[in-house]
Amino acid sequence: MSDLKKLFNPQSIAIIGASQEAGKIGNILVKNILDLGYEGEVFLVNPKYDSLLERKCYRSIKEIGKEVDMAIVALPAKLVFSVISEASEKVKNFVVISAGFSETDEEGKEKENELCKLAQEKKLNILGPNCLGFIMPEIKLNASFAGGMPKAGNISFVSQSGALAVAIMDIAKKENIKFSSIISVGNKMQLDEAELLEYLATDEKTKVIGMYLEGIKQGKKFLEVASRVSRIKPIVILKAGKTAKAQKAISSHTGALAGSDAIMEAVFEKAGVLRANNLEEFFSIIELISYEDFPKNNLVSIITNAGGPGVLTTDAFSGKTLELENFSSETKNRLREFLPQESSVENPIDLLGDAMEDRYEKALRVLDDQESDSIVCILTPQDQTPVARVVDEIIEYKKKSYKKIVTVFIGGERVEKEIARLKENGILNFAYPDQAIGAIDAFYEWGKRKEKKVVVQPVETQEERKIRVGEIIQKAREENRGALLFQKAVEIMSLYGIKTPYTVGLFDGDDLPSDVEFPVVMKVNSDKVLHKTDKQGLILNLKNQEELSAAYETLKSNFPQENYIIQAMLEIKTELILGIKKDPIFGPIVVFGLGGIYTEVFKMINFLVIPNSIEEVEEEIMKSKIKFLFEETRGQAPCDTRELAEILFGLSMLAQEAQDIQELDINPLFIYNNDKKAVAVDVKIII
Amino acid sequence: MSDLKKLFNPQSIAIIGASQEAGKIGNILVKNILDLGYEGEVFLVNPKYDSLLERKCYRSIKEIGKEVDMAIVALPAKLVFSVISEASEKVKNFVVISAGFSETDEEGKEKENELCKLAQEKKLNILGPNCLGFIMPEIKLNASFAGGMPKAGNISFVSQSGALAVAIMDIAKKENIKFSSIISVGNKMQLDEAELLEYLATDEKTKVIGMYLEGIKQGKKFLEVASRVSRIKPIVILKAGKTAKAQKAISSHTGALAGSDAIMEAVFEKAGVLRANNLEEFFSIIELISYEDFPKNNLVSIITNAGGPGVLTTDAFSGKTLELENFSSETKNRLREFLPQESSVENPIDLLGDAMEDRYEKALRVLDDQESDSIVCILTPQDQTPVARVVDEIIEYKKKSYKKIVTVFIGGERVEKEIARLKENGILNFAYPDQAIGAIDAFYEWGKRKEKKVVVQPVETQEERKIRVGEIIQKAREENRGALLFQKAVEIMSLYGIKTPYTVGLFDGDDLPSDVEFPVVMKVNSDKVLHKTDKQGLILNLKNQEELSAAYETLKSNFPQENYIIQAMLEIKTELILGIKKDPIFGPIVVFGLGGIYTEVFKMINFLVIPNSIEEVEEEIMKSKIKFLFEETRGQAPCDTRELAEILFGLSMLAQEAQDIQELDINPLFIYNNDKKAVAVDVKIII
Repeated sequence: MSDLKKLFNPQSIAIIGASQEAGKIGNILVKNILDLGYEGEVFLVNPKYDSLLERKCYRSIKEIGKEVDMAIVALPAKLVFSVISEASEKVKNFVVISAGFSETDEEGKEKENELCKLAQEKKLNILGPNCLGFIMPEIKLNASFAGGMPKAGNISFVSQSGALAVAIMDIAKKENIKFSSIISVGNKMQLDEAELLEYLATDEKTKVIGMYLEGIKQGKKFLEVASRVSRIKPIVILKAGKTAKAQKAISSHTGALAGSDAIMEAVFEKAGVLRANNLEEFFSIIELISYEDFPKNNLVSIITNAGGPGVLTTDAFSGKTLELENFSSETKNRLREFLPQESSVENPIDLLGDAMEDRYEKALRVLDDQESDSIVCILTPQDQTPVARVVDEIIEYKKKSYKKIVTVFIGGERVEKEIARLKENGILNFAYPDQAIGAIDAFYEWGKRKEKKVVVQPVETQEERKIRVGEIIQKAREENRGALLFQKAVEIMSLYGIKTPYTVGLFDGDDLPSDVEFPVVMKVNSDKVLHKTDKQGLILNLKNQEELSAAYETLKSNFPQENYIIQAMLEIKTELILGIKKDPIFGPIVVFGLGGIYTEVFKMINFLVIPNSIEEVEEEIMKSKIKFLFEETRGQAPCDTRELAEILFGLSMLAQEAQDIQELDINPLFIYNNDKKAVAVDVKIII
Repeated sequence: MSDLKKLFNPQSIAIIGASQEAGKIGNILVKNILDLGYEGEVFLVNPKYDSLLERKCYRSIKEIGKEVDMAIVALPAKLVFSVISEASEKVKNFVVISAGFSETDEEGKEKENELCKLAQEKKLNILGPNCLGFIMPEIKLNASFAGGMPKAGNISFVSQSGALAVAIMDIAKKENIKFSSIISVGNKMQLDEAELLEYLATDEKTKVIGMYLEGIKQGKKFLEVASRVSRIKPIVILKAGKTAKAQKAISSHTGALAGSDAIMEAVFEKAGVLRANNLEEFFSIIELISYEDFPKNNLVSIITNAGGPGVLTTDAFSGKTLELENFSSETKNRLREFLPQESSVENPIDLLGDAMEDRYEKALRVLDDQESDSIVCILTPQDQTPVARVVDEIIEYKKKSYKKIVTVFIGGERVEKEIARLKENGILNFAYPDQAIGAIDAFYEWGKRKEKKVVVQPVETQEERKIRVGEIIQKAREENRGALLFQKAVEIMSLYGIKTPYTVGLFDGDDLPSDVEFPVVMKVNSDKVLHKTDKQGLILNLKNQEELSAAYETLKSNFPQENYIIQAMLEIKTELILGIKKDPIFGPIVVFGLGGIYTEVFKMINFLVIPNSIEEVEEEIMKSKIKFLFEETRGQAPCDTRELAEILFGLSMLAQEAQDIQELDINPLFIYNNDKKAVAVDVKIII
């Protein structure tokens, strides 16, 4: 990591492609690095000149008589490889601004691959290509072609969109948002979100890492790094591309792999990453974290001088983990001592429209003894409201109290300056109540997630069963099967502790067994016959040997020369669907949800990111959309969480031990809320 | 309505309780009315003075030698009645600022009732009491104790929170929002949301009516008026009190009846009212309507100079009726003619970060021939972006095109002034993409809803069955029953065309019938035995006379001296729950949803506002959460929409014809997707 420190905090910089032509990127870079206060050494490099902008210019980086910490490259794509190759003796860290790589066409992709290989060989760090550069306000280094220098602060912003980084810098100027770094990642050839998280985790100036991402480059690495880093400092990600249309828009403009959004969501949650749903929420959350410590509990107290906004704030708690604290009668009495009779001493505390600063001050003092760790101070500027003096009181309170406090001043001109003064004193204001409650809720969630133990390192595999599964798959491939025969799938299930029903397999011509335990069903067992029900490949409720024989004849005539199975007819109780799905970014993922005919209507599907522990799986079940099956609902006994957790953990292990499985579907798995064991009725394994 | 015109557009005003003491409400009112440009006649009234603030002061309103259009009253609550009573010969329109009425205690409620009676007797219009007053910028009349004069425009804002009105005026000043009126309704003693909607519908200056409401006073009147007015101009309501906690906060600060939120939602939808979910959305929607005409179709085109914000905007379409238009290859070719190769010619059109104004102009021209009626222009201020010149192009385009166009300029200082210039030229900018898409979606929704035919006038009742239902209920009351016996409920169902299963009723000691069609169930039929299953009051699947006899003995021994019923045992297919529920604000409402053991988990419950037509009910079913039952889902045949509509329409009629019914539950109603008719298996009618 010391290398990235040199990249982002260089003591000397070479600008390769420096230009004196106004408006050219090579010229903007020179100005940004030289004119905005950077104190390190700067070398201009351009083969055409001996001097440039009244400074010495080097024909080549070789001419510089010493090592240089970092070089920023703004040359046509076709020159980049040779220039970096030549410079690599003297410089190990590069920022490649140049476009024309993998974001364009096959030729560009090829160029990027070569550059990446060079980086590996020569042990270089390369940010980009096709990026805006980066900005480190603390050392007044603007190594980008965006203008200006944000104020130094504790927010790191990593962006997969250079344009968005520029826009955010402009917003930051107006809103006084302060950054420890702004980094544009471009094509993420070598330094992607995972590497940057790793670096920013160690950056002392950074308190919160905000990222705008359109795709994740290395799924497993991201999961591992983000899980680790998010325990140290909050990571807030605005991940674009939730919808199919948006993914199309992404692919047409950066070619990033967007991945399934629901799986992304599951990964973020496991990794302890906070996800912002939109740009506004993103700002709210990173700004709050920039200003405050995380709330120690989920209770909030609200003070307001207007009933309406108080009610609207209360509405904003809907669907949140945060709750309004219920005040004790003692607290209410203390409030009543100084508040007019028409005030509300419930939470939100309504100080009334004629409240002067003393009511705010006294109410805050009462709240100091309450359990709630978060306070939201609402103010509407009534004609008599002494806005500045209320702000004085809040600032004073903040100095003395350990509580987390934010404000929601709803107004325009009359509150603008005072909001700025609050910010200068470390208190964040939100324009609307919903943003405040949403941001506090997210930050509280981070505090909870960072305590959670999750497994992200591959768990130990059991070699014996792994070998056996490999053999089964190998044999099926040799037989040119796309899917395993049911009997083979059953064998695999048993290796992973998943129960399947009483089953006998037959091939056309085999004799029926005489010791069948009725009632049974009989069905054709072939990967060629997918919809058994449609083509009468499944005959239910056979009660005796005669009915079984008749069914056998029917199947043989409908599907001659096939495999068939006889299976116990089970009591239908609750149907689940389980499976393994391969995500292009994160690899195998375990899926579980409610089955039955309305599976697609209810959409009660959950994703389980692997690896995991059985305890983690249990927790996930109790947070999932089907948790109601494992709680007492209207007098129904709950199903056994541990039992399902063991089955899902089995699938997790299988997914890791048999990477050859392309897809696995258990549909249905019957589960019961009595002594009966869960049974995987049908299992399809595609290889 | 001419009366309200005099109230809100008076040619002469009396200020009763005018004061010269700075800071007093009676003084603020005088200043606001005299100093802000109002050109009508103003009379100051105060028994203590002959002159006030260098003007003549009247000891009493009687002394004024002519009629006065409106009087504003700022006196202690105890004086209000007598003063208005005395003035009522000369003045018919009053604004009562004074607090101390129903918002306080029983005594205050009494005072308000007396005042209300006086208003009825003397045919007065009274706004308030306990209100801020109102402001009509067009005639420069600030008849409130809030300071300032907003700019004249086309937004009417009606607020149940005076403080929020003040806050919004402050925001308006900064954001240049323009109003046709701001009206604080206070306790809504006589003039509530319905009366104001009626008045504002006829107010030519008002294009959009925005309301902040904590409760609705007269449910049925509101439904009737809002349905009518929303066809003429959009009504946008921010209704606080979604959650139970919020309703508690409301009751502690205004005592308004908040009502069930889901029912409120159903009423708003039927009435064609747009609901804003929070303050920010409220502003977005009313401002958009203030600026634009409603979109003629649901297609949107997006132009952007930054890929990232384009993708984020695409994400914002999720869950909306709006859609991105798919461009034809011809359109794409036209875009390719002037755009660089790396641009995206899909929708969103990505002009790239180095776009000058010409790319915006040309792209807009191409869009002019597209079907989409709405255009969103996104801009991030890159260093080279000529923001002002892009704005020039958008303004020019707007002048010539019939398309609806809004902008999303994401930035701070570099875009601020240009956003203001856009607004001056009739183009609204949104700070974030989500707000823009949300507001356009809402406005489009209004355009759709206003075309919808809904029934809001009571439908004709059928006297004969109405009388019979009345008799049944009367008889049950005489027998001191809280609920009807099943047989009586069955009779009522048959009057309304709802089928019930084959049923025989018995009383303890009666002989069993000998012509039963097996299989049947037998159960105890008593309003004292609520949970039949728990106490073995329901015995299923009786296949012959012997089993029936045994069941009869069991029931007689478990529940002696009760009524019992024998009922056909039905095939269980899809279970619905239906019912009638009484809402404290809107009266009887029909409820329908998915039944079965997980009713409360899936929460697929819908509300049907009455009155309605059978066609309207059919539409509601196809918009409801259980619409999937009436569509082909995974090869399942659909159930019959018309059949359920007839049943629900029957319940609607019953609810209107039998107002004595407190609650009705059909649970379950079995419905089938084959030739079988829907059957109401159990019917409970509470009277």
